[in-house]
Amino acid sequence: MVNINQNILNDTLLTQSFSQQDSPLAQCQLVAKMYAGIENAVAVLSDLKANRSYIYSGGVGTAMGLDIGTEIDSIWEEGLFSRIRPDDLEAKHAMELQFFHMLKDLPNHERYDYYVNSILHMRNAQDEYVPVQHRMFYIRSADNGSVWMALCLYNFPPQQVESDNYFGRIVNSRTGKIMLPDRQQVNDILSEREKEVLRMIKTGSSSKEIAARFSISVYTVNRHRQNILQKLHVNNSMAALRIADAIHLLEN
Amino acid sequence: MVNINQNILNDTLLTQSFSQQDSPLAQCQLVAKMYAGIENAVAVLSDLKANRSYIYSGGVGTAMGLDIGTEIDSIWEEGLFSRIRPDDLEAKHAMELQFFHMLKDLPNHERYDYYVNSILHMRNAQDEYVPVQHRMFYIRSADNGSVWMALCLYNFPPQQVESDNYFGRIVNSRTGKIMLPDRQQVNDILSEREKEVLRMIKTGSSSKEIAARFSISVYTVNRHRQNILQKLHVNNSMAALRIADAIHLLEN
Repeated sequence: MVNINQNILNDTLLTQSFSQQDSPLAQCQLVAKMYAGIENAVAVLSDLKANRSYIYSGGVGTAMGLDIGTEIDSIWEEGLFSRIRPDDLEAKHAMELQFFHMLKDLPNHERYDYYVNSILHMRNAQDEYVPVQHRMFYIRSADNGSVWMALCLYNFPPQQVESDNYFGRIVNSRTGKIMLPDRQQVNDILSEREKEVLRMIKTGSSSKEIAARFSISVYTVNRHRQNILQKLHVNNSMAALRIADAIHLLEN
Repeated sequence: MVNINQNILNDTLLTQSFSQQDSPLAQCQLVAKMYAGIENAVAVLSDLKANRSYIYSGGVGTAMGLDIGTEIDSIWEEGLFSRIRPDDLEAKHAMELQFFHMLKDLPNHERYDYYVNSILHMRNAQDEYVPVQHRMFYIRSADNGSVWMALCLYNFPPQQVESDNYFGRIVNSRTGKIMLPDRQQVNDILSEREKEVLRMIKTGSSSKEIAARFSISVYTVNRHRQNILQKLHVNNSMAALRIADAIHLLEN
């Protein structure tokens, strides 16, 4: 069976000419802009390679009272995040981390068949929490398999939202199959030893102290540190701890 | 307040360069292709001026066993329609007609803030009815106010669908306001006299016969005929009758 989706992606995104620059970034930016235009979405394109985000704020941004600029030096849109209800933000992080690790196990072309669809609650211009639909797509992978470009879309949900809780699903857009979030899968992101190391890092311990505590070499501690950063998809220990907190990774 | 949505639409859709042709059609086709690529959607772009549709079939098309070509000489995608559960198809027509008339009363730039979001049921490749999310956007209007380019998107719904009934809403994407469908609004699409004329057309009466029946001139009958076609957004009486049937316009 021909992979129609991939072909269309290729035909659409790779063969267009662009006025500003001929790069995958410009092509992904066009997709984000289009969602902001057609759906009034707040569309955040995050370049994981450059650790940079591009924000296209459609009408929803105005309704939400968002003032978050158009380009930031991070893949974390703190301006947006600060308006998300804290427990929803935690759940969102957990979902996205699970999604990321699921995609890493898939060949590049199958990744485009999955996205995250969730309902979370954000403070609007009147400072009231209202339900917002959040969708996340990875729209470009690097040749080496790294997940490269992430697109987050924030809209008002098209239906009345019944529940006041965070609601998130990984959806296969090709088959309609809905995958439930799996707590166990989140726990399995780090090994038990890696969790122990991260708990020590949290207390402010040095690599040397951690090595002594577990009777392993400093070299091994540093290898664990590297693995933790890689698995949590962050650049430094502070960010790793923030993520681990958000998804309750160290609690069990 | 700056109309961000319109600006983004303009910036995005009007200022890009295109490899094939520089026309609004190519720009709208790009939007449709992108939905097929990013969301695996079956995306149908209908050019109301040319009475022509362009179909971009993402992975959902394969899953649904759709074989509907890529370009048809009609804004009615019969290949798709034949797979929609008949009562859902009727409800869909009614909703879209209501949407069309609502938009006609709005200035061009406000039209981009509304779309139809609905759940209908379609036969899949295994000939079973499954819930499908249908979204409809008008993405381009003509300078004279005519609604020009319609985009219909068919996806699997991201959530479990509880009800077996058609579910449709007109949504303001900028504010999140959900407008319920309104039976009265559908009834008001044609005047009582126009309905009477259409009922006569349905029985096969000529304009002369209709004129005699209502003691009006043939000229007036033909004016009513023109208004009916225009209001129902069709080119001939057969199509008008099909629509009227679908939305139960002649029943009360």
